[in-house]
Amino acid sequence: MLLSDIAQRFGLTLKGEDADIVGLSTLEAAGPEDLTFLAGARHADLLATTRAGAVIVPPAFADRVQRALVTDNPYLAVARIAALFAKPQGEFAGVSPLAFVDPEATVAPDADVGPLAYVGPRAEVGPGCRIFPGAYVGEDCRLGPGCLLYPTAVLLAGTVLGSGVIVHAGAVLGADGFGFAQGPEGFVKIPQTGTVKIGDRVEIGANTCIDRAARDKTVVGSGTKIDNLCQVAHNVTIGEHSIMVAQVGISGSTKVGRGVLMGGQAGITGHLTLGDGCQIGSQAGVVKDVAPGAKIIGSPAIEGQAFMRAAVTFPKLPEMAKRLRALERELAELKKELAQGGER
Amino acid sequence: MLLSDIAQRFGLTLKGEDADIVGLSTLEAAGPEDLTFLAGARHADLLATTRAGAVIVPPAFADRVQRALVTDNPYLAVARIAALFAKPQGEFAGVSPLAFVDPEATVAPDADVGPLAYVGPRAEVGPGCRIFPGAYVGEDCRLGPGCLLYPTAVLLAGTVLGSGVIVHAGAVLGADGFGFAQGPEGFVKIPQTGTVKIGDRVEIGANTCIDRAARDKTVVGSGTKIDNLCQVAHNVTIGEHSIMVAQVGISGSTKVGRGVLMGGQAGITGHLTLGDGCQIGSQAGVVKDVAPGAKIIGSPAIEGQAFMRAAVTFPKLPEMAKRLRALERELAELKKELAQGGER
Amino acid sequence: MLLSDIAQRFGLTLKGEDADIVGLSTLEAAGPEDLTFLAGARHADLLATTRAGAVIVPPAFADRVQRALVTDNPYLAVARIAALFAKPQGEFAGVSPLAFVDPEATVAPDADVGPLAYVGPRAEVGPGCRIFPGAYVGEDCRLGPGCLLYPTAVLLAGTVLGSGVIVHAGAVLGADGFGFAQGPEGFVKIPQTGTVKIGDRVEIGANTCIDRAARDKTVVGSGTKIDNLCQVAHNVTIGEHSIMVAQVGISGSTKVGRGVLMGGQAGITGHLTLGDGCQIGSQAGVVKDVAPGAKIIGSPAIEGQAFMRAAVTFPKLPEMAKRLRALERELAELKKELAQGGER
Repeated sequence: MLLSDIAQRFGLTLKGEDADIVGLSTLEAAGPEDLTFLAGARHADLLATTRAGAVIVPPAFADRVQRALVTDNPYLAVARIAALFAKPQGEFAGVSPLAFVDPEATVAPDADVGPLAYVGPRAEVGPGCRIFPGAYVGEDCRLGPGCLLYPTAVLLAGTVLGSGVIVHAGAVLGADGFGFAQGPEGFVKIPQTGTVKIGDRVEIGANTCIDRAARDKTVVGSGTKIDNLCQVAHNVTIGEHSIMVAQVGISGSTKVGRGVLMGGQAGITGHLTLGDGCQIGSQAGVVKDVAPGAKIIGSPAIEGQAFMRAAVTFPKLPEMAKRLRALERELAELKKELAQGGER
Repeated sequence: MLLSDIAQRFGLTLKGEDADIVGLSTLEAAGPEDLTFLAGARHADLLATTRAGAVIVPPAFADRVQRALVTDNPYLAVARIAALFAKPQGEFAGVSPLAFVDPEATVAPDADVGPLAYVGPRAEVGPGCRIFPGAYVGEDCRLGPGCLLYPTAVLLAGTVLGSGVIVHAGAVLGADGFGFAQGPEGFVKIPQTGTVKIGDRVEIGANTCIDRAARDKTVVGSGTKIDNLCQVAHNVTIGEHSIMVAQVGISGSTKVGRGVLMGGQAGITGHLTLGDGCQIGSQAGVVKDVAPGAKIIGSPAIEGQAFMRAAVTFPKLPEMAKRLRALERELAELKKELAQGGER
Repeated sequence: MLLSDIAQRFGLTLKGEDADIVGLSTLEAAGPEDLTFLAGARHADLLATTRAGAVIVPPAFADRVQRALVTDNPYLAVARIAALFAKPQGEFAGVSPLAFVDPEATVAPDADVGPLAYVGPRAEVGPGCRIFPGAYVGEDCRLGPGCLLYPTAVLLAGTVLGSGVIVHAGAVLGADGFGFAQGPEGFVKIPQTGTVKIGDRVEIGANTCIDRAARDKTVVGSGTKIDNLCQVAHNVTIGEHSIMVAQVGISGSTKVGRGVLMGGQAGITGHLTLGDGCQIGSQAGVVKDVAPGAKIIGSPAIEGQAFMRAAVTFPKLPEMAKRLRALERELAELKKELAQGGER
């Protein structure tokens, strides 16, 4: 691939002569036919010694290399260029004769359904979709163009995906929400008759669960990225471009805003509202609404800086308790002395 | 369905004329042929404007609607009535020719085994069971009547389910417990030769894991409901009618009582006893036995109210430390002054 | 099996006459043809009443039984002997005609691939491996001798397993790491082009996820044991003989040493180094490097004993705050009195 083509495609500035590039590698490992990148200023010394054919750099470092693709956001350029070179997984094409595709299902002509995959009645699989072996697409599901369902990904009945959605292995969309009424004989299941609706370009991690709504829909907005082993309960709504790091759990009916960042293992109580752009720290336990842009952490979660200060003091608690006792003793003694002195 | 039939079936009181009902909906969305319900007093204003054919209400609100099903527990009535209208998932019937059913397995005549499902040697699948595509029933498993195994649910060898058990997609019952002996060459696996035994009407969430016992049985009592992504380690016993919210983990050999409530992401150490009816708060870290009926939270978990009070004080720690230092200084100065005064 | 054979095989000392043994059981349940073991000194009373044919005991208790296998490490002996008697799961042999095995895959002659399993192009399945129904082995995977892939275990393209690796049901190896660049239109996926490399005798729990590296490899060292529902992010390296209890999460690029113990539900931030032999407590939140051999706990994690002392004081916080206020008041009053006294 020509550097000039790459530059034009992604709006980068080519510095130096054009060249043919065969791959993307690190500063240390790249050879003369590879493109590489400066991940941060602290690696700048490697620019002098790299054997790479060309380097993606921010403008400030363009002078230090002979041939470069210059951009204000090298990280983004790397993401896009890497996609050109990345080889997609899964070597199957068309609808495998070993797949089960219901006669009432609709599979776009250029979609792939691997062996041992299941596509149920009235399911619609859009153009360019790839359903890996062992994946399950329940009845009445709809997959927009270019969706990717990795092995054993499960979409239960009626789940709707936008375009370009990636569902990793073992993820389960549309399992029943966890809802029960108390009856005289014990818990009585409340039928979960809603669905799951996923926007465009959403990525859903391995073994993550997104439950169907009790009624209506559980919704994940376009551009949102969810890591592995997360739990999204029934009737949750997550806005666009939010991030859920691994093992986060969101309880039922909570509304998560747009551009929200949820750190790993955080837990969010049900029926809350998390404002746009707020940041939830790792392992936080969120028990009340969060204002837009707020940063919170701790369990129960409080404002981030307040938490960090308190956490620093926490190990001193035993010593503080001791000093408190000492003070009480000292003051009592002083008062006693003064009282005795007064009597004298 | 006639309102009078529903009323009779579930012991509700019909107020107003009988009518034919085709579905269940919300107060806002219901049409003249729908039944709806008053979920709580705060929605009572909607009773005046709903177009629903009939409303499920508690006695106090019966006067405010023309046609009603009256009951002290509307939530429970809704759960039961919704089940009448809910359409079960999975459009397959009988044993699919694309399923693998071992010749030595026994499948009840009216049970369904979907395509791409596996039923191993000597497994017994009871009447009315439904095994979804991609589910695995290992050798010697026994499923009571009316069990539901969603896609990719896995029952390893010898797992026993009571009646009406629901195992959601990706749940794994009977994987090896996590047990090793320390040998000179590293950890040596302790063969896990026990099984898993699940009672009646238990629901097991998506991607939840219940390990087989090292010896003997890991047990979940009847009526207990387990949410997604939970971990139940080897030799754990959970009593009847308990609740495990998502992402809870219980370590080996712990005994959980009856009617216990475990909040999301709580973690429970091994070899403990949790008394009947105790409540474990979300994200709690339980490190010692819990008395029946106790409410605990925090990590390590302590009595609930004590935790909440301490948690409120926690952010004030830095300020308390400051005030403590100030007091020490003040008191030292005062003593110094008094000593000097005494000298004078 | 003869006791003398077992003794010889595992370096135990046979006390008493030789005998034929048919199984391994507990002190209470064992019959005259069973071997049993003394799990701890507190069960020693049962030695007098057990009906077992022979007992595995440490030297100190050898006098209390007629026939014994004597060893300093009975627990280890039990692990090894139990393996002799344990019946392996999964009754299938050879390559099932209902499995999908790509013509370009290589399956060792004595390996088993169950029905409904998938083995992709150029995958290499070593001698003695067993691939259960519903498992997925992607293209270019390599499995050393004696690996076990339980139902629905997923190895995505290029995953490499050493010898004797056990992957439990639902575990996912080689899903994409969670990496995105920020672009003007939202998050842009950074292609994850690395792989996963697992050492020898590693055990990976049910529904655990080990992501492929962004580049290069995510590595788990030989002898390491990982419990259920754990998350190992891209480019993480775990040393040999470490333990990860259930629901632990490790963020990207963190290096975990050798012989490290990670307690249940612990969370470890990315780009950290955890020294050899360190111990991370359950539910700990590790946010900085950990020294070799250190024991830490809490969120954020601190030295273990310091945490435990502070945790004990924590519930007293509200009372401490009260006493602090009382002291301030008392001291202020005293000063006031003294000032007034001075005026007089």
